[in-house]
Amino acid sequence: MELMSPIDSIFLLGEANTRPMHFATLELFEPPRDAGPDFVTRLHRKLLDDTEIHRTFRRHPVHAFLADKVGWVTAAEIELAYHVRRRTLSGPGDNYELLELVSDLQSVLLDRSRPLWRMYLIDGLDDGRFAVYTKWHHAAFDGISAQRSITRTLSPDPACPDVHGWWHPRDERRGKTASAGRTSASLRQKLSAALQFAPSLTAVVAEALWKNTTPLPFSAPHTMFNVPVHGARQCAARSWPLARMTPIRQATGCTVNDILVAMIGGALHHYLIGRDALPDRPLIAMVPISLRDRKGTDTGGNRVAAALCGIGTDVADPAERLAGIAASMRRAKELHSALTATQSMTFSALMLSPLALTVLPISAPAVSTAPVNIVISNVPGPARALYWEGAKLAANYPMSIVLDGLALNFTISSNIDAIDFGIVACRDSVPDLDLIVDYLEKSLAELESATAVGSVTAPRS
Amino acid sequence: MELMSPIDSIFLLGEANTRPMHFATLELFEPPRDAGPDFVTRLHRKLLDDTEIHRTFRRHPVHAFLADKVGWVTAAEIELAYHVRRRTLSGPGDNYELLELVSDLQSVLLDRSRPLWRMYLIDGLDDGRFAVYTKWHHAAFDGISAQRSITRTLSPDPACPDVHGWWHPRDERRGKTASAGRTSASLRQKLSAALQFAPSLTAVVAEALWKNTTPLPFSAPHTMFNVPVHGARQCAARSWPLARMTPIRQATGCTVNDILVAMIGGALHHYLIGRDALPDRPLIAMVPISLRDRKGTDTGGNRVAAALCGIGTDVADPAERLAGIAASMRRAKELHSALTATQSMTFSALMLSPLALTVLPISAPAVSTAPVNIVISNVPGPARALYWEGAKLAANYPMSIVLDGLALNFTISSNIDAIDFGIVACRDSVPDLDLIVDYLEKSLAELESATAVGSVTAPRS
Repeated sequence: MELMSPIDSIFLLGEANTRPMHFATLELFEPPRDAGPDFVTRLHRKLLDDTEIHRTFRRHPVHAFLADKVGWVTAAEIELAYHVRRRTLSGPGDNYELLELVSDLQSVLLDRSRPLWRMYLIDGLDDGRFAVYTKWHHAAFDGISAQRSITRTLSPDPACPDVHGWWHPRDERRGKTASAGRTSASLRQKLSAALQFAPSLTAVVAEALWKNTTPLPFSAPHTMFNVPVHGARQCAARSWPLARMTPIRQATGCTVNDILVAMIGGALHHYLIGRDALPDRPLIAMVPISLRDRKGTDTGGNRVAAALCGIGTDVADPAERLAGIAASMRRAKELHSALTATQSMTFSALMLSPLALTVLPISAPAVSTAPVNIVISNVPGPARALYWEGAKLAANYPMSIVLDGLALNFTISSNIDAIDFGIVACRDSVPDLDLIVDYLEKSLAELESATAVGSVTAPRS
Repeated sequence: MELMSPIDSIFLLGEANTRPMHFATLELFEPPRDAGPDFVTRLHRKLLDDTEIHRTFRRHPVHAFLADKVGWVTAAEIELAYHVRRRTLSGPGDNYELLELVSDLQSVLLDRSRPLWRMYLIDGLDDGRFAVYTKWHHAAFDGISAQRSITRTLSPDPACPDVHGWWHPRDERRGKTASAGRTSASLRQKLSAALQFAPSLTAVVAEALWKNTTPLPFSAPHTMFNVPVHGARQCAARSWPLARMTPIRQATGCTVNDILVAMIGGALHHYLIGRDALPDRPLIAMVPISLRDRKGTDTGGNRVAAALCGIGTDVADPAERLAGIAASMRRAKELHSALTATQSMTFSALMLSPLALTVLPISAPAVSTAPVNIVISNVPGPARALYWEGAKLAANYPMSIVLDGLALNFTISSNIDAIDFGIVACRDSVPDLDLIVDYLEKSLAELESATAVGSVTAPRS
């Protein structure tokens, strides 16, 4: 048995049936032209034969005899057929049916007596594509290690017949030796080191986050999204072409990330008005941002910080909302530049994960003063087309974690020239999630109109 | 809010992710001859339109402010599309694939913020049948109320087009008014009344079960089935014609129930030998038995008692094993005849449920001395053919609850002239569950041979 880092064990100790601590990836693939009707069947069979399994995918937790201590054991073998399942939609095979299945799967805890991941190959979509939904427990994986497992498994060559599962140990492209959880481990090790200097996790977060980094501590209004959550989830997914952001970016000087946050601010403005639940004060989002574009003093590679950003839900004008968000994000970046290396490093890991939120003083049922209303993460995806046994990765939706006090999560990824939104909500607390998706489109169209590059099909309302 | 009875709340308070407290029913239906390919689609749509919902199917639990107190609230509306799902097998559509899906569904807790049941219509079986898998939480339903909901919904008339869900409130056949949980409620009320005279649940069980009822208290050997359980389940199902029991019954004077217990004793004999894990002493089963066939002094209608029965796993000879089981069962019935009315009534409810076991001194990880090794329940099913929108009920498998210390459960039902075995196991603790199913057949064939009415295709081994 290997003792688990405090960071990883928090995801297990804090987990409950209403608070699963796994995130997921939902990928859509376009089968190659010559794919027969049994393409997914053959792919599934090939994956089940891929029984060489990296130890990261064979580890499962055990409770040590001392309370609150959790360790890892590495199983010699695992039941691959349990971890790699197939599902077929019953019909009509539309987006709604796919996302209802994904919502059911997202609601369910992983079994701790087995390695903390499961993958589902899903066919029966009416457009001929197939989906791969993978659950990754946050105690064993983080978004970056999951994304790297996926990217490393796929190939830029559509003719590459080399199908492997995420779990297959393989050399890094360009010939380097790598292990599946390598980046992650290194990130986690750094965080553990940083935490040794701190009296407690809470103190680190309070010190670094609330004192130094933001003009808006605890000014978030209470909203319908800041309630204790129930067990059932609802997932939504939608893609937008990156090309629609470009003219807005050029017209305003804002970043693409600013525009994505503004899309969400606008969508929630409309949604909350529709439910007669819009607060006077703006909703506050926690937005992990990269600090890498600063002058090259940080060689560590993991300079990520949390911007706390008012997302302008109180502002009716889309252009004014975007400008406010861009200013807020710039201010956050400036503040983060002043952080010490240790503070920044602590952030690096904390802000990549919902861990930061689990140690914040949010606890059900006392969620009357939420420090933030919502988390908006943006995890970069592949920049070029990737293939799996000739099937092209067409979309790549991250599905993140919902917590008590944070019943709605937006996580955004990208795939070549598309922006892919993955949205997860507590099914009871956030009704009509599809409306929010529609309002994202409406909000983008409003930004297009407002910056005078507008889509004529989507008038301002 | 309505306070929950102590009995019902134990199923919620004792529940954990590794110990879901729902049981399930898995029914197989043969569609009518004129059923089109979209029969299940239409059935699903009809069910979703059946929005008149009995309050038993709208109740969900809430925690009261006082610890350990749980109440019921009745929702005005429920999201029927969440509770009534469709699944389609991907192929090959065999029994294995169906039961792997069922195993996944059986492993997952019900969401307590919603009414504690879910139903899955499953098509894609290669024999053209379709399955209905329903989860019923034991806090809200017991096996009898579930069985009655099902039976009342189906019709003996194949032409009856009157499709309803289990949840639909309706008059009892023969014109009486009934409510879905009626039998159950009455049984539970009786138990609550009985318990008011007892110092504690544990004391009642100890007094009635261990002192008065059995020659075998705590003599059960430790076996591989008596371990703390993990979260994943494996389910198995198989039917045998009742006609195969009849000659054995006639040759030996044993009851059908004795023969079913002997089938299991023989199967576990072979299975444990194969794993080099057969104890010297016989495994002890808890077998709920009906006392109704006694002379008519008990008008209450719920005279059920627990026989603790050595199932002859230490005996190599099938006829000797059966004779021992029959004698043990007879002795248990005689002992129960001497119980007071209160004791018997307490048993009535306790033994219908795994509750008895949750209050027994079994607790992980201290399961070194198991009071019983296994639970074998036999719940009578319909005696005549029943139809649902013209589809014939072809089989009716109960899938019960696995507990810490009881990693394997056999629950048996019947359908006209077939005996349907539903078997649920902790997936990690009981490998090769299919072997046990094969050994049930082998064990029955051995009984046939031994009682000289034998099947020539299954020689004794």
